Amino acid sequence: MRRVKLVVAYDGTNYHGWQIQPRANTIEEELNKHLSELLKEDIKVIGASRTDSGVHALGNIAVFDTNTNIAPEKIRNALNKRLPEDIMIQSSEQVDDNYHPRRMRVIKTYIYRILNAKTPNPLARLYSHFTYVTLDVEKMQEAAGYFLGEHDFKSFCSSHTKADSTVRTITAIEIEKHEDMIEITVSGNRFLYNMVRIIVGTLIQVGQGKYPPHQIEAMIQGKNRKLAGPTAPANGLTLIGQK
Amino acid sequence: MRRVKLVVAYDGTNYHGWQIQPRANTIEEELNKHLSELLKEDIKVIGASRTDSGVHALGNIAVFDTNTNIAPEKIRNALNKRLPEDIMIQSSEQVDDNYHPRRMRVIKTYIYRILNAKTPNPLARLYSHFTYVTLDVEKMQEAAGYFLGEHDFKSFCSSHTKADSTVRTITAIEIEKHEDMIEITVSGNRFLYNMVRIIVGTLIQVGQGKYPPHQIEAMIQGKNRKLAGPTAPANGLTLIGQK
Repeated sequence: MRRVKLVVAYDGTNYHGWQIQPRANTIEEELNKHLSELLKEDIKVIGASRTDSGVHALGNIAVFDTNTNIAPEKIRNALNKRLPEDIMIQSSEQVDDNYHPRRMRVIKTYIYRILNAKTPNPLARLYSHFTYVTLDVEKMQEAAGYFLGEHDFKSFCSSHTKADSTVRTITAIEIEKHEDMIEITVSGNRFLYNMVRIIVGTLIQVGQGKYPPHQIEAMIQGKNRKLAGPTAPANGLTLIGQK
Repeated sequence: MRRVKLVVAYDGTNYHGWQIQPRANTIEEELNKHLSELLKEDIKVIGASRTDSGVHALGNIAVFDTNTNIAPEKIRNALNKRLPEDIMIQSSEQVDDNYHPRRMRVIKTYIYRILNAKTPNPLARLYSHFTYVTLDVEKMQEAAGYFLGEHDFKSFCSSHTKADSTVRTITAIEIEKHEDMIEITVSGNRFLYNMVRIIVGTLIQVGQGKYPPHQIEAMIQGKNRKLAGPTAPANGLTLIGQK
């Protein structure tokens, strides 16, 4: 028996997120199905990040145990031949038997892309959120600074969050604009349910001038979901990876 | 009566190209249908570039005549509300009555994107051609130089080409690599059927080392489609626009 780690990229457009659920197409289900067929075993992967419906990934992690004779590094290409083209394994390798993708001290990075232009761009529509209201990127950058470090993010997670503690650490948050595309990159150790999308939804409202950047501080201290902005749409979000 | 010019962007993935044809979904048909419904007239657009099945555009041009009272510059937003999200008007404006999109002395620019990586990227799959064979970009750049200027491109167009003359001018051709993505930008006054995709297919073979860059010269002089490389897939090609 050995433990194999996959780095998985996917276009989340046509999936109801990572986690298996009844009567819905999910990334986890596709991986289990095609791995089981390839390896002729009943494979159940464990994912590092249970991304939401419509969210994309370049480097999510899946881990599973197998008795196969196929060399771990050859599983990538063999599996890619079976997978639909919107899910592609980037690498496969053997890891220690005690490696668990959700018990690691890692930094995860997400990118959120916003097309801020007069009209939507059909070639960007699947992987960015479109808004024609001009956003003030400098104000968004100033606001982003308030999220840095360790805070109680109770105002910035879904009211359905089941976590024991809502204290989390954001290790980096950067906002860049390239032509019409605003890219918000957020890194942290663990994220609460919808946390990145609520942070982005709030930053968009700062960019629209709905409230000043320093109001983020009061939103954090208020510990109430209603104080923060809306949850930004899933299609703009991509899990880049973890280190 | 006035003449209106639209700049049209589209994701060509789900269309059988620009030009109307029986029993197939086309960009031209979608524009005619939604413009006719919006303006309550029978509208037939004339397109600048009849892009092939699967080819994308950021700036194709469509022109039509109308008696509507709607201000030309307001047609953009009104039409975008009706169009499917993979076709979006970027601008609409009145032009001179003698403006014809295919009788203009213009320079058109196309970009062809090649993902040259170990594995496909699901987020790039719709808008780039994937190849895992490492391409030598410097050799491709050297080869590209032979296409510059006025030549008889008989070797570099589909054998179905109906043009009277196959002499064309390429005014610029550049190849850049950003991380794993190779971008080939080609500008010229008019292009023959499949010309950009055959040039790209040939450059890919140069990048693979199948023949040396200077062989492009003999291919051009031979005036025979069989001398050049294959037609690169449509999904990597995007019409940027014309000036």
